[in-house]
Amino acid sequence: MAPNADNLSAVLYGIKDLRLEQRPIPVPSDNQVLLQMEVVGICGSDVHYYIGGRCGPFIVEKPMVIGHEASGTVVKTGKNVKHLKPGDRVAIEPGVPCRSCQYCKTGSYNLCPDVFFCATPPDDGNLSRYYVHDADFCFKLPENMSLEEGALMEPLSVGVHACKRAGIEFGDVCLITGAGPIGLVTLLAAKAMGAVKVVITDVLSKKLEVAKELGADYTIKIERNMSEEDIIKKVVELLGQEPNKSFDCTGIESCIRICVAATAAKGCAVLVGMGKVEINLPLSKALAKEVDIRGIFRYANDYPTSIQMVQSGKINVKPLVTHHYTLEETLKAFNTAHTQEGNPIKVLIHANPNWKPS
Amino acid sequence: MAPNADNLSAVLYGIKDLRLEQRPIPVPSDNQVLLQMEVVGICGSDVHYYIGGRCGPFIVEKPMVIGHEASGTVVKTGKNVKHLKPGDRVAIEPGVPCRSCQYCKTGSYNLCPDVFFCATPPDDGNLSRYYVHDADFCFKLPENMSLEEGALMEPLSVGVHACKRAGIEFGDVCLITGAGPIGLVTLLAAKAMGAVKVVITDVLSKKLEVAKELGADYTIKIERNMSEEDIIKKVVELLGQEPNKSFDCTGIESCIRICVAATAAKGCAVLVGMGKVEINLPLSKALAKEVDIRGIFRYANDYPTSIQMVQSGKINVKPLVTHHYTLEETLKAFNTAHTQEGNPIKVLIHANPNWKPS
Amino acid sequence: MAPNADNLSAVLYGIKDLRLEQRPIPVPSDNQVLLQMEVVGICGSDVHYYIGGRCGPFIVEKPMVIGHEASGTVVKTGKNVKHLKPGDRVAIEPGVPCRSCQYCKTGSYNLCPDVFFCATPPDDGNLSRYYVHDADFCFKLPENMSLEEGALMEPLSVGVHACKRAGIEFGDVCLITGAGPIGLVTLLAAKAMGAVKVVITDVLSKKLEVAKELGADYTIKIERNMSEEDIIKKVVELLGQEPNKSFDCTGIESCIRICVAATAAKGCAVLVGMGKVEINLPLSKALAKEVDIRGIFRYANDYPTSIQMVQSGKINVKPLVTHHYTLEETLKAFNTAHTQEGNPIKVLIHANPNWKPS
Amino acid sequence: MAPNADNLSAVLYGIKDLRLEQRPIPVPSDNQVLLQMEVVGICGSDVHYYIGGRCGPFIVEKPMVIGHEASGTVVKTGKNVKHLKPGDRVAIEPGVPCRSCQYCKTGSYNLCPDVFFCATPPDDGNLSRYYVHDADFCFKLPENMSLEEGALMEPLSVGVHACKRAGIEFGDVCLITGAGPIGLVTLLAAKAMGAVKVVITDVLSKKLEVAKELGADYTIKIERNMSEEDIIKKVVELLGQEPNKSFDCTGIESCIRICVAATAAKGCAVLVGMGKVEINLPLSKALAKEVDIRGIFRYANDYPTSIQMVQSGKINVKPLVTHHYTLEETLKAFNTAHTQEGNPIKVLIHANPNWKPS
Repeated sequence: MAPNADNLSAVLYGIKDLRLEQRPIPVPSDNQVLLQMEVVGICGSDVHYYIGGRCGPFIVEKPMVIGHEASGTVVKTGKNVKHLKPGDRVAIEPGVPCRSCQYCKTGSYNLCPDVFFCATPPDDGNLSRYYVHDADFCFKLPENMSLEEGALMEPLSVGVHACKRAGIEFGDVCLITGAGPIGLVTLLAAKAMGAVKVVITDVLSKKLEVAKELGADYTIKIERNMSEEDIIKKVVELLGQEPNKSFDCTGIESCIRICVAATAAKGCAVLVGMGKVEINLPLSKALAKEVDIRGIFRYANDYPTSIQMVQSGKINVKPLVTHHYTLEETLKAFNTAHTQEGNPIKVLIHANPNWKPS
Repeated sequence: MAPNADNLSAVLYGIKDLRLEQRPIPVPSDNQVLLQMEVVGICGSDVHYYIGGRCGPFIVEKPMVIGHEASGTVVKTGKNVKHLKPGDRVAIEPGVPCRSCQYCKTGSYNLCPDVFFCATPPDDGNLSRYYVHDADFCFKLPENMSLEEGALMEPLSVGVHACKRAGIEFGDVCLITGAGPIGLVTLLAAKAMGAVKVVITDVLSKKLEVAKELGADYTIKIERNMSEEDIIKKVVELLGQEPNKSFDCTGIESCIRICVAATAAKGCAVLVGMGKVEINLPLSKALAKEVDIRGIFRYANDYPTSIQMVQSGKINVKPLVTHHYTLEETLKAFNTAHTQEGNPIKVLIHANPNWKPS
Repeated sequence: MAPNADNLSAVLYGIKDLRLEQRPIPVPSDNQVLLQMEVVGICGSDVHYYIGGRCGPFIVEKPMVIGHEASGTVVKTGKNVKHLKPGDRVAIEPGVPCRSCQYCKTGSYNLCPDVFFCATPPDDGNLSRYYVHDADFCFKLPENMSLEEGALMEPLSVGVHACKRAGIEFGDVCLITGAGPIGLVTLLAAKAMGAVKVVITDVLSKKLEVAKELGADYTIKIERNMSEEDIIKKVVELLGQEPNKSFDCTGIESCIRICVAATAAKGCAVLVGMGKVEINLPLSKALAKEVDIRGIFRYANDYPTSIQMVQSGKINVKPLVTHHYTLEETLKAFNTAHTQEGNPIKVLIHANPNWKPS
Repeated sequence: MAPNADNLSAVLYGIKDLRLEQRPIPVPSDNQVLLQMEVVGICGSDVHYYIGGRCGPFIVEKPMVIGHEASGTVVKTGKNVKHLKPGDRVAIEPGVPCRSCQYCKTGSYNLCPDVFFCATPPDDGNLSRYYVHDADFCFKLPENMSLEEGALMEPLSVGVHACKRAGIEFGDVCLITGAGPIGLVTLLAAKAMGAVKVVITDVLSKKLEVAKELGADYTIKIERNMSEEDIIKKVVELLGQEPNKSFDCTGIESCIRICVAATAAKGCAVLVGMGKVEINLPLSKALAKEVDIRGIFRYANDYPTSIQMVQSGKINVKPLVTHHYTLEETLKAFNTAHTQEGNPIKVLIHANPNWKPS
């Protein structure tokens, strides 16, 4: 493939300065594959970069291709690649670690300090026509999974990782605060991994309806006048007990506090949402109950699990998708994701020029 | 033994109202033993009850025998007791759980909501001449251990439990904030369980000297003008890396913050000290490093480990003992513990009338 | 209730000498409940005692009430019992441990050397009209569960315990050798706990059909001429990979060998079936693959999980039940279980005189 | 360095056909270092290749440089190498895995099916003057460690890995069968990781004396007329209880049987020695006690632990070294190792031409 063929790419130059421009088609090295990009979802972090030029400690300082929740089709394989061949459809795990630090060697490669990660400055993402990636971070999609589902393996893996960190096992009773995309994938993963009762909270009824559709046993619509105590009381009332696993998927202080305070003795509160740098926590009671407080960072070894969840029919991720755009419509897509117009959950961009809305 | 024989007991009637009075000698039931009390240490919680009438959520509402860090000699055994006989010297684990709740059945009996616990209101403690206790919570002391060491198994078990919660293993590099009794026993336990480098902090040089004697590799004397960042920098400098396990043994907000912030990715901060109900934590960085934050509540199944540590000669708890009193001198002992006169670490009261200072 | 009221009991006097006789109605102590027995399943061990007078190291040396897979209705409660009241329907966990040895205190009470266990000599079982049991080993059945399902919680807990020992988690790929009652409950538990693919083997097509109905993804009918290698090859072919968790539920040497040899590197072979004292194992390959070999003994803390599996609708245990008898028909029931007449899976005896076949 | 400079190498051509010949000096790639080889120990597997041309499933089919227990000095670094510089002394972990299979990604890289491993056919070893190796598998030796100790990190890592697989923690009571090099390093690792009592067995008093020197609490000299039961009885007598962790370091059936049978309920038997393909095991009792049986394959992430053990002074590996030879004396060295002349434990070959016996 000629390097000057069409490789339209969505490049973020600065705050609200996202341009579509041609880039050379990259060449895969021996352990890589060249991918025709297919579906790329917009993540909250993408929106942060677009709106504010930064996300947490990461700042856009030079033009960067955006996008990291993606699926693609293999076009060409490096000479060492054996498990993939042209035509294979894959879900793309966007981080490629150094493979030689202590974190990589011990299985926690998500904590590798030298990781390459799509669309985390200064690393380019993959919202483009073509993209090369290390083959072992491309996971072949089974026949019964679509390219859209493939792109959703990225957010789902966040939920899976959160549930693994929580040690979810059969019989767990869960609280999830926040029914945004991350709250919803955590719900899906928790149910697949054996949670028997899940209550989920949000301020928007719309999101709670989707949560119900995805398997939430109970929902709580948070109203302005509800205190933390009120909400915890309601949680316990609905579940018939304190949750033994709690997940904050908002990053909001009051929600984090609720998760930490509501969790049963010997349980675990996993804080998935990232918010303020400092949080005032009702710590002493949680400590005396030996409740563990755990964070998560991305995911590691979770893509295979995510794919199995969908492939086996245990979960259905399709209701997460609310909007579709072509690569040429990228700005519109970001506008939808940013303004929350039309109650988006997951906005997908189709990078393959042959894509037709169904 | 006649129930009206000498059973002088230290009974707390209210704030600073600690009286020595006779109580009937109790009769052991089938699974219990009657103990001649030997050595009883004064714990920080005892001092809290004495000075303030409460400790955390527990309030002294009726006269309560004080004391729970204790050793004794078996006088009489209930008919079902097989592993002990009169004359055996034992360390007394002061909590006896319900044995039938989910926490008891799964090995976390320290979280049993119906536990009896010496000198936690309303349960009587054992600073008295005689006391009955469930036999399986009395651990026979090996020949090479003294009754004083036996009494120290209680605080040591707090350190052991903290280290088990932290998952201390060979090669760990540790930070301990606070070199009071709990910081020191955590140090001892951490070294015995394989920590290769431990740095410990305190505001008092005196305590740091004891820490050195007990095996601390490095010490940091905290000065008023040192910021949290200064202290963390010093910790990393001394250890040559971020600690992968941190223990706060003060309950002070700034120390808790230092432990949470200093811990290496994938590490664990165990918060042993109990302080304010709410703590402002630098949470987001710890979460993104997947640092676990864990509390502890007392101990469970830790007495055998504590005894092995001393019996095997791996640790020496004797330097912890700074003061000795007789049961009749209980008020003086509490005064020492309370005013910190003479830099006490562990103040012991000898309940056996035949005790002679050596 | 008068101790001389009807308490017809099935008492095993010796080999094939099972008699129905009246026994006094027992009186519950403070922590116990008196139960009207409802449904009692016949276990393989019951049949062993009936036919051979022994099961493994346990020998019937004096008359023993048989039966331990049971449900009942609370008639009377001891004064300390709070979570149950007359009329409550319960599943009865048949072992009551000493509650004070190291195994009990650490959550592995199934290994308690002083456990009381129904119908394991010399302890009486509960195939009778009335029976007393420690209240905390009686689990209240939720409204949507029947007394028959309650009795099945015993064999199901064996499957649950085996799966916990194997560390079954979402995504596991399993081999189960043997589709008898234990193979089938292991299948049910494995699926509920997240196994995505299970292949099960047996010599009888009938059993494999039930396995299919209960959720087996693949079945292998073992024929006389198949070698161990043939069977392993078939297993790998069907699963598309080596199983990472294997369960032998036969106790037969060749099946144990297949489980150990077929398991993938870093996997686990759990040997549930008890057979010969010595087994010739293809050990070196399994060791070099770091495959763990683990046994199980009964269950511990598994009844709540088993009940949740049925209550939540995740599994359906009803197809396991093939035969019903009244207490008066006990000999017929044992004959069915013993001769395998009518292809029994689980034979139930109804101890309540008011039971009517539906 | 000229590729035709002196690179004398010990090349195994076939059974007992070990030749010293010049090989070109290799050139390090970007992530590699060129090493001046310093000390290379002879392992049992080296002797197997020398004597029999094979070790387990691995067969010498073309000339192969022997040697894999090694230390070296960095001569040159590839351009990506940051943690090492010329002059650094390193312990060389001899296996370099593929870094991209599921085993590599999850921290179990020892099970990587595509691993390069020194002196495992067809991969060349490093008993030569010069050798290149991936930099992240070269561990810088601290100043207080010698190059000889560096070479011993390889066998020690086998012991460390065995102890990690056993889950050795403070307070464990251990049985080790076999006091050869692997039994001895397992002993050292077990003590460092917290074993409080270790009994070790062997048929040779000489080896048991070394074991005593290295910290064994008890030794049993195995005599021809001792039955398995006799030995187990002696083990329990000496330890005062059943060991909760057992290690077979012989590969001999009777020793494996003793380890499996002697282990306490809920304990673990780790089978380190490789012997016959099939072993007759007293399985049923071990299963009913829920004793885990585990194998090991080499090591993963254990070199840092091994180095810490020596660096911290917790263990002393020096008594393991019994013989020294120069590279030119390689045949003599293999003869010593093979004939066991002079009771060798560890025979070291010094590959640096400047080495002088001290």
